[in-house]
Formats: sequence, structure tokens, C-alpha cells
Amino acid sequence: MKQVTCTAPVNIAVIKYWGKRNEPLILPMNSSLSVTLHQDQLKTTTTVAANRNFTEDRIWLNGKEDNINQPRLQSCLREIRRLARKRRSGSGEDGVSRILNYKVHICSANNFPTAAGLASSAAGYACLVFTLAKLYGVEGELSGIARQGSGSACRSMYGGFVQWVMGEREDGKDSLAELVEPETHWPELRILILVASAEKKHVSSTAGMQTSVQTSPLLKLRAESVVPGRMNEMIEAIKKKDFEAFGQLTMKDSNQFHATCLDTYPPIFYLNQVSQRVIGLVHRYNAYYGRTKVAYSFDAGPNAVIFTLEPTVNEFVEVVKRFFPPESNGDPYLKGLPIQSAPLPQGLLAAVEPDVCRGGVRYVIVTQPGPGPVESQDPSLDLLGPDGLPKTTPEVTGSQEAFS
Amino acid sequence: MKQVTCTAPVNIAVIKYWGKRNEPLILPMNSSLSVTLHQDQLKTTTTVAANRNFTEDRIWLNGKEDNINQPRLQSCLREIRRLARKRRSGSGEDGVSRILNYKVHICSANNFPTAAGLASSAAGYACLVFTLAKLYGVEGELSGIARQGSGSACRSMYGGFVQWVMGEREDGKDSLAELVEPETHWPELRILILVASAEKKHVSSTAGMQTSVQTSPLLKLRAESVVPGRMNEMIEAIKKKDFEAFGQLTMKDSNQFHATCLDTYPPIFYLNQVSQRVIGLVHRYNAYYGRTKVAYSFDAGPNAVIFTLEPTVNEFVEVVKRFFPPESNGDPYLKGLPIQSAPLPQGLLAAVEPDVCRGGVRYVIVTQPGPGPVESQDPSLDLLGPDGLPKTTPEVTGSQEAFS
Repeated sequence: MKQVTCTAPVNIAVIKYWGKRNEPLILPMNSSLSVTLHQDQLKTTTTVAANRNFTEDRIWLNGKEDNINQPRLQSCLREIRRLARKRRSGSGEDGVSRILNYKVHICSANNFPTAAGLASSAAGYACLVFTLAKLYGVEGELSGIARQGSGSACRSMYGGFVQWVMGEREDGKDSLAELVEPETHWPELRILILVASAEKKHVSSTAGMQTSVQTSPLLKLRAESVVPGRMNEMIEAIKKKDFEAFGQLTMKDSNQFHATCLDTYPPIFYLNQVSQRVIGLVHRYNAYYGRTKVAYSFDAGPNAVIFTLEPTVNEFVEVVKRFFPPESNGDPYLKGLPIQSAPLPQGLLAAVEPDVCRGGVRYVIVTQPGPGPVESQDPSLDLLGPDGLPKTTPEVTGSQEAFS
Repeated sequence: MKQVTCTAPVNIAVIKYWGKRNEPLILPMNSSLSVTLHQDQLKTTTTVAANRNFTEDRIWLNGKEDNINQPRLQSCLREIRRLARKRRSGSGEDGVSRILNYKVHICSANNFPTAAGLASSAAGYACLVFTLAKLYGVEGELSGIARQGSGSACRSMYGGFVQWVMGEREDGKDSLAELVEPETHWPELRILILVASAEKKHVSSTAGMQTSVQTSPLLKLRAESVVPGRMNEMIEAIKKKDFEAFGQLTMKDSNQFHATCLDTYPPIFYLNQVSQRVIGLVHRYNAYYGRTKVAYSFDAGPNAVIFTLEPTVNEFVEVVKRFFPPESNGDPYLKGLPIQSAPLPQGLLAAVEPDVCRGGVRYVIVTQPGPGPVESQDPSLDLLGPDGLPKTTPEVTGSQEAFS
């Protein structure tokens, strides 16, 4: 029996991925670029065990057994085993070759609630592929396999600032993630996740982007004519740590992604009234200061991701608290990195026209860029017990408070 | 003294105009196409008087004197007078030449409340230009002058189905409205205006489209790559009276216009939560029947314009009443053409998932395609009295109930 436990991060795209040119291989219509969030606040943990006594491959997600036969899961398992065999070929019978014939048990859990609406599939597939690679002793490029689990998972294979180069080949071999800058590059950068109260379920991103590819003329035009230039601009802004350029482009690209959703038929709305209010607040806040001090980005849901720099974070959180005061149900409103209360300058509140929306934001997670997947050295973090079955700890069942 | 009174209609674009390639001449980035609404429900009335004793040109809008020196108003006055002189040149001294030297008094009023958020400038400028042309005896093509008052006004110069051909010339001489089909072509077509409760003022369309032209990459791509094909498809759908094609394209083009607003920086939101609910309702209603029985279109505001055919109108109004029941303040909820209450089929309400939003729609105006501007033969409708000053009747001050 061999067992490995690893963790992997969530990432937030600032140049958005929306639409595949090849569905089974998960090849995107355009390149994209993301910031990897710190695992101290948001991470997936995965334990994989291989044992000669296991009779079948099995998987548990957040404490509940799930279907191992999902095509994307099978793609990842098949591809990583194929790579392990290939890289081991010629080296004869060894430990890895032996466990390659064993069945695996996989147990995976997030330290953040699924209800937060954060795309957990990226961290989940990145963690799965990274952990299997450690199990089988596979080194090197793995983002191409993670991509086949969930497109954006390839970007969670690196820390810091990561681009997913769309590639040109039909077999997808050149559609890979690349490190742009590591997480240490821009230490002042802070990220707030404003978890919005969602009143209903949303169109899944897989289904949504399929409909967009089939029906939105603007999606194709965006992919061909707009994104290539924006990728270059974004990489330059990050390398120069130019927040003005980074923030503006992040907002423009989030808006353009949601524009293609609206151009989809029937249209898809991910931005709700709370999202629109956050957008208005950010623009008025920046207008007050005459420069881009905060920037928003929205994925396939109403939660706002806010980028800002350390000197601004306390003040902006204060503004968010004034605008979207919590329902007084006693739950913590601020989670993650510590925030100091800040005095607001005379005139700022009037300038941003606080139109109070109590409960519109359920809570705020404060985080920063962080590293890529890592192998755990602490056996107490393993999600599988000695019997190869999930432990019944809060870690396995997905703690709601683990990031506080 | 000579005095003329005319009326002109509102139009609703089904292929949208958004963005000018030339601001002063009001030349659009793309062609557009609209349906002219019937004046029995919505119209502007304008009286123009010319008198040797008037000392200056003056204008009153809905009973209040306004600034005659606005550039667009001056453009229309100058152009129509120039045209009158040109067409009269050589015919010597006559009645028209004499009144061309007189100052004019202009009085204009809508029979619908400005609060309804219906673009009144199209009807207003169409009416002004048409009335001045009658005053000066100018015949023939006038849409190029109306265009210089307000772009979409050129389409209100004709009844029925009207295209505004963008043209190619730098001087704009070929940027004109053309009749596609008269109002008698598709007698079954009905139009509902769902006047939404607006919680705040919106970005004006003039300012909004300027920002879009400057900042939205998708607007340019739409104008160049999408609209030309859609114009052909729309004209074909109208000529064939193919509601499936007409309705789908109407919805897609409305959505794409709002997508370009979202792609504008900072983004412009004209669709609010009520608009989004109407969109969802229409798609679920059509899904229930397996075909496009109703279609929505939204301009620069949250009001929904619904297109449908006569056999569907009673039932769909019933559904709207269930979804958006009126606040019980006694105001009439249905205005315009008569509506019969209709029994709803078993299963329909469940299929459209009525998520009741009381007061979301303030009232509904029921109308149909109608004719272009007409000259009044009834002196009692004149808005100016014998003294050349506005009468103080409800007509002049803009009655809220005139369309009921």
C-alpha cells in the first residue's frame, strides 16, 4: 500500500476562459490568465491510496462517495497512468510499476463551502492530478492532464500568475499552463471574495459555455480579435506590477465575458442586482480617488472577486461593510487575512453614494496570491485511514470554518 | 400667419442602433430596423406657426418653454429651411418664400408620460421635421433631416416596418430611412409595452453610445460582422411574416445591444431585475409551447417591449398579470387596445414557474404597428392659440391618460 496527500489552490481568471474549440480534449477558444489564491484561505486536499487489496477505483468528495466513471475523471486517471508507464518504460520492474497495477481510492475535500459558489473543480482536478503524479513518481509537465479534468484546473498547477496558452495543435499537446510570475512577485496584491446571497441556482459553466459557443457571435469575435492583445497587455501589467493597467483590464475582461453570456441565446445572467451594485461601488470608489485602486472580476456566479493593494484593503473592506452590512446572525463577516478597521475620509461615503443593501454580501474572504500544489508531510492531514476508507473528521466532510 | 399641426409615431428597433461613426451628422455605425407603433396609443403632436410679428424662434415642449438654440434643433430648422429655399428657387416670390423669412413658434406634446421611459426624441424630431415641411410646402425625402435631430427619428418618418440604411458617404446624404413594408402588411402583429418600475435614472442613450464607441471592442465587431447579415435576415422574416424568425432575431439583437453596453467601460446596465425576469418568463413561455410565440426587446431602459401575434395576446397578458400583479393603487393596469381575460392552459403556469413580483410592471400599453406622420385637419388639436402661444389644455401639457 502506498498513500499520498497533497493540496492545491483555487485560481481566479483575469483574462477569462469561456468556450471550447474541442469538447472532449477541453481545448479553449482563447488563451486565459489567472491569479492563484493562497491555500491558507482556500484549498482542496486530496489523499490517494493504492493497495493490492482494492478491488476497484473509488472516489469520495467531501465525505460522500461519487461516481468514478465520469469521463473527465477517467481521462485524468488514464492519462496519468499512461504517462507513468511511459516515463518508467525500460527501467524494469520497480515499486511504481507494481502500484500501477493496483486500484486506487481517492478522497478529496475543500476547506471552503461549496455554497460559496467558488469554482471548486479547478482546485479539485489540479489536486487529483498532482497527487496521482506524486503517487506514481511522475515529474514535469502535468497541466495538460489537469486540463482534461476541468479546463481551468491546468492553471491551478502553478502558483502566482499563470497563463493557459490555448495552443494550435488538434491533439491539444500544446494547450498548457505556464508560469508568468511566481506568488512572491507582487507581495502587495490582495484579493477579497465577496460571497453574494444567491437566490437561485445558475447555469453550470460547462453547459453555459457550450450554449455560448453555439449561439453567441460575439464570443467568437472576442476570442479571435480581442483576447490575443489583452493577453500581452495583461502579462506586461503583471510584470511591471502596474495596478492601474492590471485592474482596468481585469474589469474590462470580466465585463466582456458577461457580455458574451448575454449575447448567448437564450441569454445567461450570472450578474445579479448585488453584483451590479458592487460594480457601481468599485467605479465610484475609483472615481473618488481618480485612479484604479480596486478592481472586480466575476465568474459564472454572482460572487465578486476584488483585487486591490495592501494599503487600500482595510479602507475598502470598511466601505463594503457600510454598503453591504451583514445580517446580524452572528456568523463571522470577515474571514482569512486580518483586517483593521479604518477611518473613512470625509466625503468618500457621500461620493460612493452608499445605498445600503443589508445581507447582499454574506461574508468576505480576504486572501492573496499563493503557491501551486504541494505534497503534505503531515500524516494527520491524510483523508484516508489505514483501512483505505475516508476518515470521519471535519477535514473530510468539508469544514465551513476551516479558512477563518 | 400660417399654422400647421401634425402628429408622428414612436418606433421600436428590432435591429438596434447604438453608436455613431460621425457625431455632428448623426451617422450610425450600422444599419437598423424598426417597427412603427400606432399613434392611437403613442404619438407626439406638434404645432408650428410662422408670423411676421414673431421676434424670435421659440419652442415649448409639453407646455414648458425650452431652449431653441440646442444644436440639433438648430440643425433641423436650418436644413428644412435650406431645402425649402432650394426647392422654391426660381419660382419667384410666393407664400412660402415670404414665411421663410418669418420666425416660428413650435409647440410639441406627447400623449404618453415621459416617465414611461419611451424614447420620445424619435417621435419628437420626426414630428418637428414633418410639420416644418408641411409649413414650408416641402415634399419628398425628409428622413435625412429628422436623423440630424435624433438618429432614430429618421425611422419615425414612415409607418410599418422601416430600415435606416447606414450609408457610406462622409456627408451622410445616403444615411436615410426606407420603408420595408407598410403597417397593413402584418395585421396580426401586436406590441405590448411593459412599463417597469425604475428605481433610478439611467445613462442617456446619447452619452451611453458615445462611451460605447470609445471603449467597447465588441460594438465595432458587432457593427461590422454581425449586423449586415441580420438586416437581411430581418427583412426576409418580415416580408414572409415569419414570426419564429422575426421573434428570435429580435431577442438576439436586443441581447447583443445590451451585451455591448456591458462591454462598455465603465459598463452600462439598462436591464434591471424586472427586465431579467421578463426575459426568463418569455423564454419559459416559448419553451412550454415549443416555438417562439412572444419576443422581447429592450432599449436604453428597463421597459420591455413584447412582440406577439393577435391569437396569443390575451393569454400572454394574463400571464404577465399573474407574474407582475399591479400594486392595488387603482391606476389602470392595461392601456390601449382592448384585452379579454383568457383562461390559462393546465400546466402553463407551473411551466413558466411564476415567481410573483408585485408592482414590477407598473402598467402595460397594448398597441400594434401604425402609420407614419400625418397632418391634422382638426383645428381643435392645434397646440398654439391665435396669439401664437401654447394653449393651456391637457394636450399641451402632456396627458397621462390620453392613450387609455
